[in-house]
Amino acid sequence: MAGKPSAKSQTSAKYDQRRQEVLRAAARTFNRLGFHVATLDDVAEELGVTKPALYYYAKSKDEILFDCGRMALEAMSSALDKSPASELTGRERLIRFFRLYTEVICEDFGRCLVLTEPRDHAAKSRHENVAGRRNLNYAVREMIRDGIKDGSLRQVDDRALSIAMFDAFNGIGRWYDEKGASDLTSILDQYFSIFLQGIETPK
Amino acid sequence: MAGKPSAKSQTSAKYDQRRQEVLRAAARTFNRLGFHVATLDDVAEELGVTKPALYYYAKSKDEILFDCGRMALEAMSSALDKSPASELTGRERLIRFFRLYTEVICEDFGRCLVLTEPRDHAAKSRHENVAGRRNLNYAVREMIRDGIKDGSLRQVDDRALSIAMFDAFNGIGRWYDEKGASDLTSILDQYFSIFLQGIETPK
Repeated sequence: MAGKPSAKSQTSAKYDQRRQEVLRAAARTFNRLGFHVATLDDVAEELGVTKPALYYYAKSKDEILFDCGRMALEAMSSALDKSPASELTGRERLIRFFRLYTEVICEDFGRCLVLTEPRDHAAKSRHENVAGRRNLNYAVREMIRDGIKDGSLRQVDDRALSIAMFDAFNGIGRWYDEKGASDLTSILDQYFSIFLQGIETPK
Repeated sequence: MAGKPSAKSQTSAKYDQRRQEVLRAAARTFNRLGFHVATLDDVAEELGVTKPALYYYAKSKDEILFDCGRMALEAMSSALDKSPASELTGRERLIRFFRLYTEVICEDFGRCLVLTEPRDHAAKSRHENVAGRRNLNYAVREMIRDGIKDGSLRQVDDRALSIAMFDAFNGIGRWYDEKGASDLTSILDQYFSIFLQGIETPK
């Protein structure tokens, strides 16, 4: 029977898949109503199940929020190391990172991360959430410093630039509407043009 | 008795002044705990008064949030027309606006505006809050278009630039700590340098 998944692992895979659907529905509900306003009843309604059925997959809003944030942070960190750093300049890595990052924060889990703050998390999970956000920030600051070293970026304060870019691109996750007039690719092109070339007429 | 305020207007002025203090304490409380988590009990505690004493000045969190937002929006719109537009280029007006705007959002009322969203407002006051935010956005987009016309700014999408700048500068209101290492003036200088000159090495 080699190669055929056991009944147990099939059940487990099915549970995991269903739990993913639960998390995604919860993220959508939090994003739509706001984390503090949304209830587990709202999540159950979004899923079309009863609250006891929901409890089988997640016990509390805190647990769900933490897992939604973790899903987003995992998707983002995979964006950090998709190709060897040495092949690209700091400028190119910065663009690549914010392109993938923004794609993530315009999806359900990423949007949930952007629309909540560390203080919304229960004390025991806040630490891991903050650490995940901080890692991204440090990675971006390193790209910026590498870009200054390799000559692709001019001398700028890496801390200020990292925060300014995260705040501006996070904003896209707040207001972007995939049914709206602008597609994400052209919004990103406009943002990169603003940040890379600046807005004043060259002297 | 000309020139001397009446007893009635003295009482009224005292009431207004005290109400301002109540609103400011409420803004600080909302900013610290989050609007949805903070209660009127927390606000009363911040003020060092009882909840019945608080009720004399404000009836609900919704009413307080609306007034805090209005105070911030008023401070910002006064930043819009401090000197005749014709004397300055679009670029100069844009810098002047975001300098004053950021000072406002780093104070109690402005921070409260930045840390809440239109959906946090009760239905009847949401419309006015949204209109106030939209007016600022339109004014900034006009400055950008004027700057493109007068040659001080290069051809950029005024909508994308306005949103990117509001999101980046709003971020300062979220994380700026006046007891921290950087003063607001140097943070603003770094942000203007990023947005005006861009970050890539000139070709």
